Amino acid sequence: MQSFWHRLRVGAFAALALAIAGAAAALAADDPLPSWNDGAAKASILAFVGKVTTAGSPDFVPAGERIATFDNDGTLWSEQPVYFQIAFAVDRLKVLAAVDPAIAGNETVKAVLSGDRAKLAAVGEKGLLEIVAMTHAGMSVADFEGIVRAWLATARHPRFDRPYNELVYQPMLELLAYLRANGFKTFIVSGGGIDFMRPWAPAAYGTPPEQIVGSSGRTKWQLVGDRPSIMKLPEVDFIDDGPGKPVGIERFIGRRPVFAAGNSDGDLEMLQWTTLDTGPRFALIVHHTDAVREWAYDRDSPVGRLDKALDEAAKRGWLVVDMKNDWKVIYPFEK
Amino acid sequence: MQSFWHRLRVGAFAALALAIAGAAAALAADDPLPSWNDGAAKASILAFVGKVTTAGSPDFVPAGERIATFDNDGTLWSEQPVYFQIAFAVDRLKVLAAVDPAIAGNETVKAVLSGDRAKLAAVGEKGLLEIVAMTHAGMSVADFEGIVRAWLATARHPRFDRPYNELVYQPMLELLAYLRANGFKTFIVSGGGIDFMRPWAPAAYGTPPEQIVGSSGRTKWQLVGDRPSIMKLPEVDFIDDGPGKPVGIERFIGRRPVFAAGNSDGDLEMLQWTTLDTGPRFALIVHHTDAVREWAYDRDSPVGRLDKALDEAAKRGWLVVDMKNDWKVIYPFEK
Repeated sequence: MQSFWHRLRVGAFAALALAIAGAAAALAADDPLPSWNDGAAKASILAFVGKVTTAGSPDFVPAGERIATFDNDGTLWSEQPVYFQIAFAVDRLKVLAAVDPAIAGNETVKAVLSGDRAKLAAVGEKGLLEIVAMTHAGMSVADFEGIVRAWLATARHPRFDRPYNELVYQPMLELLAYLRANGFKTFIVSGGGIDFMRPWAPAAYGTPPEQIVGSSGRTKWQLVGDRPSIMKLPEVDFIDDGPGKPVGIERFIGRRPVFAAGNSDGDLEMLQWTTLDTGPRFALIVHHTDAVREWAYDRDSPVGRLDKALDEAAKRGWLVVDMKNDWKVIYPFEK
Repeated sequence: MQSFWHRLRVGAFAALALAIAGAAAALAADDPLPSWNDGAAKASILAFVGKVTTAGSPDFVPAGERIATFDNDGTLWSEQPVYFQIAFAVDRLKVLAAVDPAIAGNETVKAVLSGDRAKLAAVGEKGLLEIVAMTHAGMSVADFEGIVRAWLATARHPRFDRPYNELVYQPMLELLAYLRANGFKTFIVSGGGIDFMRPWAPAAYGTPPEQIVGSSGRTKWQLVGDRPSIMKLPEVDFIDDGPGKPVGIERFIGRRPVFAAGNSDGDLEMLQWTTLDTGPRFALIVHHTDAVREWAYDRDSPVGRLDKALDEAAKRGWLVVDMKNDWKVIYPFEK
């Protein structure tokens, strides 16, 4: 028979063990970036947010000035085998061609729907603008929104056989939420179409429509009887890519970000605009290094080429996130 | 000698009277629109905000969707004897002409600085664009911001001998604050220049730079060494007036307002866009009826003409605010 003291000691150890386990669970629950492996990438993000939110710190940034901008394609969701908006346009062309012989007979449309690489290569810029006009204009913004929603509800990504908006990056969702919890105002600043993103990005990323900046076509006010609408015209108005990103940030936001995330050379100027100023600044590049769980590509990729910005990251000390090694999971459905 | 019961009753009445006086004072202190006279205008605003913020009400609007847009010139600050941005441009021309003989010798500049009405009338659209290019382009957005700040710090309104940004309407400041306190997100949507407003409007109205929409010129990214800037080019990009207002709202905000305020025909389409939809909607027109404290003008005014929108207000039941009778004070400095 065990002594009273022995039993008490066992009880105390058991209680201590329970307390330790509880604390560990609580700490894990409090980890704002649970899908990021512990390491330099995660640590540098936590350190930056810590210092700009610590009142009295020389690096303190008032809450209203904590502007964070995120590229979308390849930074918040996947962009392979083609930008998802191109998949949308091709699917839309199929629908239109099925009901309109003029569209079905159009040479550019035939080239695109053939899937033939040589024919596609011959489409050129004029052909591309023709496709954009056919698929992204001639209806109201509200009607286009309905078309995008319907596409997302039915289309499936060829590799993952899931709706395209499920291919968002879980670690980046956590980063967006973590920044917002720390007083940052998060914006999407994408080369993708603003009207293509607004139907789904608010729910996916927790950013309201007015915090989404993107490329756009010209639009026109129309009032028919008592029914007003904003009509999408077949003319490109603004390309929010490369040097267009800081231009779009200045126009829509009107102040410089202190935090920005991108993944390609199209984000280079946004990252420069964010970091080449006084005060604490943070730039992050998502490097696609995971051929198994996602894709691996950088300097030679026609989609999301990352070349100049990768060199610049080394020179400027921007964080290059190694998807394969820094992220525990890629997509929410892996959890 | 009074009985115990009598004294008790007197004490009770006194306590009751004190309680009533206290409640009345508290109610007055709680009046969210103290510079608005009690009457139909104020009551209709309070009733609208009450119903859209009452959970369970058929007219309830979730906080995130309570978008309110405000014109600036003539709605939030005065616009007489000329739009204040024109006063800025004329003052700027004087500065430039004093140091640059080419500008001093320019025929359009001479016409503008002569103050001669006949010469001014001959300037035309081409001349106006020339003036805009001279005064609003050829520098970075940041440098232009400095120029606007310096002007506001020194320029004085000819009638009131005060900085222009003191000529904001106290009742409208209260309305903006009241809407925000009730979960509305307030935006400025002005025909004025976005870069002209952002240096002072955030402090004046409590709206951050990213909630200010306005007219704009084209801009260009520039990187010289490690110094990036956004340069203002001498080309008009977007006119945020008339049918441009709903176009700007759709582009910048991406959803329809439920509340909008304007004062001229330049706001007509914004008020239609706001109200010609299902659900609770509110449109307000500031009618300049006070020739003593401010100015009185409407259908025949070259500045801030209010003609079609006044007819439409009657037809649609929009609130027409009578400055003279609905507002206790016009400017903050009258208090």
